[in-house]
Amino acid sequence: MAKSKFEYVRNFELDDTCLRNCYIVVRLDGRNFHKFSEQHNFMKPSDNRALGLMSRSARSVMEELEDITIAYGQSDEFSFVFKRSTSWFKRRASKLMTHVASQFSSSFVYYWKEYFGEHPLLYPPSFDGRVVLYPSNRNLRDYLSWRQADCHINNLYNTTFWTLVQKGGLTTTQAEERLSGTQAADKNEILFSEFSINYNNESPLHKKGTTLIWEKVNETTTKQIKRPDEVQTEITVTRTRKKVTSHSCDIIGDQFWEEHPDILESDQC
Amino acid sequence: MAKSKFEYVRNFELDDTCLRNCYIVVRLDGRNFHKFSEQHNFMKPSDNRALGLMSRSARSVMEELEDITIAYGQSDEFSFVFKRSTSWFKRRASKLMTHVASQFSSSFVYYWKEYFGEHPLLYPPSFDGRVVLYPSNRNLRDYLSWRQADCHINNLYNTTFWTLVQKGGLTTTQAEERLSGTQAADKNEILFSEFSINYNNESPLHKKGTTLIWEKVNETTTKQIKRPDEVQTEITVTRTRKKVTSHSCDIIGDQFWEEHPDILESDQC
Amino acid sequence: MAKSKFEYVRNFELDDTCLRNCYIVVRLDGRNFHKFSEQHNFMKPSDNRALGLMSRSARSVMEELEDITIAYGQSDEFSFVFKRSTSWFKRRASKLMTHVASQFSSSFVYYWKEYFGEHPLLYPPSFDGRVVLYPSNRNLRDYLSWRQADCHINNLYNTTFWTLVQKGGLTTTQAEERLSGTQAADKNEILFSEFSINYNNESPLHKKGTTLIWEKVNETTTKQIKRPDEVQTEITVTRTRKKVTSHSCDIIGDQFWEEHPDILESDQC
Amino acid sequence: MAKSKFEYVRNFELDDTCLRNCYIVVRLDGRNFHKFSEQHNFMKPSDNRALGLMSRSARSVMEELEDITIAYGQSDEFSFVFKRSTSWFKRRASKLMTHVASQFSSSFVYYWKEYFGEHPLLYPPSFDGRVVLYPSNRNLRDYLSWRQADCHINNLYNTTFWTLVQKGGLTTTQAEERLSGTQAADKNEILFSEFSINYNNESPLHKKGTTLIWEKVNETTTKQIKRPDEVQTEITVTRTRKKVTSHSCDIIGDQFWEEHPDILESDQC
Repeated sequence: MAKSKFEYVRNFELDDTCLRNCYIVVRLDGRNFHKFSEQHNFMKPSDNRALGLMSRSARSVMEELEDITIAYGQSDEFSFVFKRSTSWFKRRASKLMTHVASQFSSSFVYYWKEYFGEHPLLYPPSFDGRVVLYPSNRNLRDYLSWRQADCHINNLYNTTFWTLVQKGGLTTTQAEERLSGTQAADKNEILFSEFSINYNNESPLHKKGTTLIWEKVNETTTKQIKRPDEVQTEITVTRTRKKVTSHSCDIIGDQFWEEHPDILESDQC
Repeated sequence: MAKSKFEYVRNFELDDTCLRNCYIVVRLDGRNFHKFSEQHNFMKPSDNRALGLMSRSARSVMEELEDITIAYGQSDEFSFVFKRSTSWFKRRASKLMTHVASQFSSSFVYYWKEYFGEHPLLYPPSFDGRVVLYPSNRNLRDYLSWRQADCHINNLYNTTFWTLVQKGGLTTTQAEERLSGTQAADKNEILFSEFSINYNNESPLHKKGTTLIWEKVNETTTKQIKRPDEVQTEITVTRTRKKVTSHSCDIIGDQFWEEHPDILESDQC
Repeated sequence: MAKSKFEYVRNFELDDTCLRNCYIVVRLDGRNFHKFSEQHNFMKPSDNRALGLMSRSARSVMEELEDITIAYGQSDEFSFVFKRSTSWFKRRASKLMTHVASQFSSSFVYYWKEYFGEHPLLYPPSFDGRVVLYPSNRNLRDYLSWRQADCHINNLYNTTFWTLVQKGGLTTTQAEERLSGTQAADKNEILFSEFSINYNNESPLHKKGTTLIWEKVNETTTKQIKRPDEVQTEITVTRTRKKVTSHSCDIIGDQFWEEHPDILESDQC
Repeated sequence: MAKSKFEYVRNFELDDTCLRNCYIVVRLDGRNFHKFSEQHNFMKPSDNRALGLMSRSARSVMEELEDITIAYGQSDEFSFVFKRSTSWFKRRASKLMTHVASQFSSSFVYYWKEYFGEHPLLYPPSFDGRVVLYPSNRNLRDYLSWRQADCHINNLYNTTFWTLVQKGGLTTTQAEERLSGTQAADKNEILFSEFSINYNNESPLHKKGTTLIWEKVNETTTKQIKRPDEVQTEITVTRTRKKVTSHSCDIIGDQFWEEHPDILESDQC
């Protein structure tokens, strides 16, 4: 079989290696998720089952793919940060983003039942991805701050919008008009004065999104052993294991980064 | 919220538009599928359930994403060809390949049961993807020929290898040694003289892989209507619909392309 | 000396190989040539010395660099077309465009005197470059047609503009206003009815620009030889040599391409 | 004229914007300069006229193009560093590298006479260029250290080689054999014990290459003015001007960078 005759086509592949010493961010976005959320009767303004499933899928990505040190998600998007020195897949952009998109998508369907129970998944959903490089810690933190600021802005809007609709009896069109041109302070005021809702007390998950990182966790297990004198006894074993942990806290300020100094690598490299 | 302060990070995104007037091929490959196939007890040398699921997932990709005119799959890989004039997602490579990888992966899990029944999927699998551009019809056909030639070579090897093991009683190491350095003719000969197997009569699906294209199909439905005189009657309605059809035929020679002249666009553009 | 310690920085170079089977076009444009032409008192609307020097520099590029099959220039720009199968400099875009820009620029200064005589070059000029790929013959021809159409449009405008100024006594502002909103036919009419100039009879160099190609040329030389009988005699030797030839003809229509069938490579490759 | 019909070809241009917040380095290398140096009888091991002309051309590049903060040259190469925040030419790689290559090459021919006098330039030379990005100050300094270490290694070799030939009477082949496998210490020893040459006392220009930076320089000029009482008098005016200055010093250690803190921008951006 004339394999060699055709093999020249391999040379049409172009190299897309990511510049070294830059953080590699892969961001996924749900495709047509507005429609998807309506077809699956997502709660408004936020559906905790969906957010849980998004986080579960993101954890699956972190556990399967190497060198992701932090991931941040909100709504139907999730960002994954590969460490700046990663050589996973030789830093090839196409490999990195397709693997993230693939693992996330298969996990989303795989774990659907854990979050939605008997509520059926009507069709396989899709997420698109992109790669963005950030050369400095400042740039990377500003990227994550940008996404968390976006989460806050959208959540405040959606919380107020759906409160006006669900508790205030407005139509969606009326709610839209009511909020047109309002600032953050105005929305806080509407929630507080008309509905006695203090936005600060809303769920951190909704206000801050989800941040996944690797942390050392002590795991204690109990083991049955036989002593030399053949007597059965019980001992407690504590092991330190790296585990993906989930946080819904502010990542714009310095505190989070000071508490987790291992996420960033030095700019001096 | 100082959204604008962070928004500069958007400018770090780089453009990855694909050159115009070239076919855009996205190829997916299963990650660690050797292990995956063992853990899920795939039949050797080929598992028709797995091949069916691959094709079902590929069909899902073609139906959900625009402008894919032909897809070709074998083993744990599938290639998707976007037409050379496509402007889907503005021809952005990252969008094209992540959407294909994502839709394929979510479909693979979603349709698992249709092919594997109660045989459980143990974990969510992953596929990586890449984009390759081909400027001419010749290049594109040679790409597809390359993949089909690869299918043939692998299938002949695997068929002989597993026949030696399953029917000939060799260990896998012995079978490997036996086949080391053999040509196609030698393998055909082993199959025929030792096991009375004529390779030509093997399944076209295994020898040729799966080619998916869009075809016009007549669909006939029967409708109950009421005539003006109020009598109920039955009529037959035939509609022509474009549908993804599956083929396991040779795509290296000219015949397939002459029978389906709409797949390729003219080089004269 | 710790060479190895620093050598890692080589890995920051990214690959920029041009897609195969595409024509590689490098276009150069003069930087600030409006100012340059005024400081060097170029004739208006076109300066034949400058156009000659541009062509001479382009010829130098073609003679020094491999695989350029056609070049087209007008005003302060020149385009160079590498054949679609070239592997010169492994098709690395950066090498191709910098070499063209460099060779052209050094030649421009080197040959200045041949065209401008004692008229001094006041400072070293600069040209920028870019690479554009064209996958088909149609695309490449349309690119060259685009540049020649641009030449025509500019030359008709400039010819009319400077005729109004130089022969019609208008100020440049008045000439600009006069031509504002006019079509090609209007400009032809102004030239003909007011200045008895038939634009069709204008210089082909100005109307069509300069096309450089490789052609086989017979070169006849006379040699003195000594016959066996020691008598000195003269013989004529004709050799066929490939040479860069210059044309100022239409390259939009088919005739030029039919007369020079070797410039393009088949789309069927 | 059907301009619009062809104008679609513009869309084949691909974007090559350089990642933000990275230093952009353009390095030029002479093409076939071994041959060029022989044809122009360059002195061995180094020709000060040629090095002077290289530096003069590099200065021309720095003065004409914006945002180059440091340039380093040795032998037939020169590197130009654009500041990490530059937006010159919208950071388009092709524009940056072709302009540097072009300006350098035209300057090389333009200033030839200032350095080579009546020694004629036989043909226009060519330089190729490339763009490399460096995300951190450490990376950039290591790049420059790499080039200066290369300068040292080559100069020590060449100095010893040509001393063996010119003073030791060896053929070039013999000198090559003599130096094969030697370390830096061996070459120093040959120079010192056989030719009483202390390599440390060799020219810094040859050992360290040429570093060009912008510095504030006081320029004092004398002006004739008329005092109110009409008496002519002379005054001295001192102005501070930014000027390209040339250095042949170590740039691997910290001292140079501490003395010129404005060259690098903070990694904290």
